Amino acid sequence: MTYCVGLRLDDGLVLLSDTRTNAGLDNISTYKKMFTFEAPGERIITILTAGSLSVTQTAMLRLEEAIDDPEADESTSILKAKTMLKVAEIVGNALAEVSSDISGKLKRMEQNSASASLILAGQRKGGDQRLFLIYPEGNFIEATDDTPFLQIGEHKYGKPILDRVIRPETSLEDGQKAALLSMDSTLRSNLSVGMPLDLMVIRRDGLCVSQSRRIEPMDEGFMAMSSAWSGALRDAFTRIKL
Amino acid sequence: MTYCVGLRLDDGLVLLSDTRTNAGLDNISTYKKMFTFEAPGERIITILTAGSLSVTQTAMLRLEEAIDDPEADESTSILKAKTMLKVAEIVGNALAEVSSDISGKLKRMEQNSASASLILAGQRKGGDQRLFLIYPEGNFIEATDDTPFLQIGEHKYGKPILDRVIRPETSLEDGQKAALLSMDSTLRSNLSVGMPLDLMVIRRDGLCVSQSRRIEPMDEGFMAMSSAWSGALRDAFTRIKL
Repeated sequence: MTYCVGLRLDDGLVLLSDTRTNAGLDNISTYKKMFTFEAPGERIITILTAGSLSVTQTAMLRLEEAIDDPEADESTSILKAKTMLKVAEIVGNALAEVSSDISGKLKRMEQNSASASLILAGQRKGGDQRLFLIYPEGNFIEATDDTPFLQIGEHKYGKPILDRVIRPETSLEDGQKAALLSMDSTLRSNLSVGMPLDLMVIRRDGLCVSQSRRIEPMDEGFMAMSSAWSGALRDAFTRIKL
Repeated sequence: MTYCVGLRLDDGLVLLSDTRTNAGLDNISTYKKMFTFEAPGERIITILTAGSLSVTQTAMLRLEEAIDDPEADESTSILKAKTMLKVAEIVGNALAEVSSDISGKLKRMEQNSASASLILAGQRKGGDQRLFLIYPEGNFIEATDDTPFLQIGEHKYGKPILDRVIRPETSLEDGQKAALLSMDSTLRSNLSVGMPLDLMVIRRDGLCVSQSRRIEPMDEGFMAMSSAWSGALRDAFTRIKL
């Protein structure tokens, strides 16, 4: 499994993904699930992936091929598409096509179908920052001021802290903190989500990656934060009256 | 959906269930999901239910019928069974039979099958207190000192707080607090789990219901606890450094 979360805050986008991939429980690997497509000053697009690795890898490769294709135009290259909505459509179509191709092959072998879902975040020059959740079938929903965060994968363990904390006016620093604590709860409760983590911040109107950080299993900052949070929760728990 | 949790602490058993039942999203009702079978001083058995209401109601009725049957013996009545393990087997068999009967009917109508899972808690005179999770197929697992709590239904939102707090030596008061906060997180994040709540405490070796409380939606104690917890979480979040 996977846990990825994206926040669309007034000051920018915060994106966090884990890296654990497993085929069964006895075959665990580390794969980056955060993919960035950037034309600094023009547009920045980041995609987080959850689901069948063969589907997400192939979909990302097709998007890259379309970008590199000298004949690519605004209907096929996500770096040329006129709006973020168009980008979401191109990504959704790529995902649905790959998923249907691979599921067709699996079906002929009488295997279950393979699917994946994506978080798409970004901004183009002249447009506003946007955050989408793209479903396996290629359709999508967008984050709004009422619902400023989107999650894919193993999303339930980490939702309570986001429900309590995340508002559009939340600062980028608090957004990162909440995303990391949401991941921390998920890591503790579900073995199929694992370190290292990839954390990215895209400031509004920056049109480039503002901050990008790989958090390794022994990262001192993350460990300190995680244990401070545990301690604070235990203290709070002790103080609450039944 | 449903959320039920049972804790097996050194000092006793703590049980908590919600009461929301829905057939689709537009047909919501309130049903008690906590069933107690008691012979004070001899044995106390409480069952929490999650899943298809027609399955759980029928299974509970069959267990009651078997108790009332004057010819019932230790192999059919959970109040006569020699051990809690035997009780778990009787309950598991009842659940599996009902589930298979109903699923057979549904299948003839080309409907999806119906299933349910249960938490079984209790103690008999001369035995130790025990806590089981009974699967739809009738097989079961038992809580141990390493894993002193069991959950059924919508269990993920409320697991992080239990993972952090619940140990066998946790007091009954702290156990109730943790169960209620676990439910509070679930209520906030999932509409299909709803008030009122049923909370029960069975002291070790008490062989009777030590405490039983229906918590209504406007219960002042629960509301105060829930808002104190929200405040404490926000404070803790503010103090944590990124």
